[in-house]
Amino acid sequence: MKFSLLLEQLIEAFRCLPGVGPKTAQRMAFHLLERNRDNGLRLAATLSSAMQSIGHCDSCRTFSETPRCKLCSAGNRDASKLCIVESPVDMAAVEQMGTYRGLYFVLMGRLSPLDGMGPEEIGIQPLTLLLTKGHVAEVILATNPTVEGEATAHWLSGLIKPKGIRVSRIAHGVPLGGELEYIDAGTLARAFEGRDVL
Amino acid sequence: MKFSLLLEQLIEAFRCLPGVGPKTAQRMAFHLLERNRDNGLRLAATLSSAMQSIGHCDSCRTFSETPRCKLCSAGNRDASKLCIVESPVDMAAVEQMGTYRGLYFVLMGRLSPLDGMGPEEIGIQPLTLLLTKGHVAEVILATNPTVEGEATAHWLSGLIKPKGIRVSRIAHGVPLGGELEYIDAGTLARAFEGRDVL
Repeated sequence: MKFSLLLEQLIEAFRCLPGVGPKTAQRMAFHLLERNRDNGLRLAATLSSAMQSIGHCDSCRTFSETPRCKLCSAGNRDASKLCIVESPVDMAAVEQMGTYRGLYFVLMGRLSPLDGMGPEEIGIQPLTLLLTKGHVAEVILATNPTVEGEATAHWLSGLIKPKGIRVSRIAHGVPLGGELEYIDAGTLARAFEGRDVL
Repeated sequence: MKFSLLLEQLIEAFRCLPGVGPKTAQRMAFHLLERNRDNGLRLAATLSSAMQSIGHCDSCRTFSETPRCKLCSAGNRDASKLCIVESPVDMAAVEQMGTYRGLYFVLMGRLSPLDGMGPEEIGIQPLTLLLTKGHVAEVILATNPTVEGEATAHWLSGLIKPKGIRVSRIAHGVPLGGELEYIDAGTLARAFEGRDVL
């Protein structure tokens, strides 16, 4: 043991953060101890209260410390549209776009049997409940354009369509500002397939 | 505000860690919330107790939650040698070497007037107290080989020598395993100056 017991424990505890190895953990511990104890204490308090009180919104499943998240309880959103995303970060990205005024449903993951993520884990029950309420006219599948995201979108589409609800998937194609030279063949093929007639 | 209030506060709180920007902070918060709440709570508890109870060893000034650190209270160290280092990390590096059996004094910084680090801040008073006790026969200056570290070593040498205590500085030269081709001219010049006759 190189340092005092508590200091070693602190360094070890920092390693639960993603991308933090032994050297970074040590640097974090020393930084806070040497010149940032107030912020360290504030981090400890916020972290503790966040881990205990942040749950999921009853309606859209995003992270929220209240039973309903701000967006679901706002009342000024178009309840006929439901955008399904994988995580709260994706929801934030769609919100940043500024033009979508519908509601959301957050899967908190994607179908991935090897990681133990099945229909139950991505919230098939609350989603079905939401859809049977009858307000939703269109579901926009905005899962990530990865293999697992595509599979999840495909599976959800097969589940929702029979309910007579319109299902759409966000478009695949070349991103704005990209250069054709650097875009993979798969994306380019999808951009050709989905070309718009002018 | 993209997320709920508490989540935003958590992301903001993570930014007090060194090298953590908004995206990394967000990743940390989501990682802990999604799959590591127990570890998050443990980090919060350890961090809080470390920030409150870790102080400095009365003797060597390293971080310690007890008035005397383990090393100073061990009783099996050679009190005639005192190694002065800049930080507890440097002390750990010297300890890892395995051959030094003397005591330490940690400056907790280096002389750097522009950053407000003067003689008081690097612990000139406890150091003088330690030296006047009369046990120390040799002081080994192991501050970093940077401009500020060298200046600190020079200043300390001028302070300690008049007390009739032998003062030495760790050798500068080519590191083991290094290649001359990639070593800077200053280091190489010091390696030539300090060459050993075989």
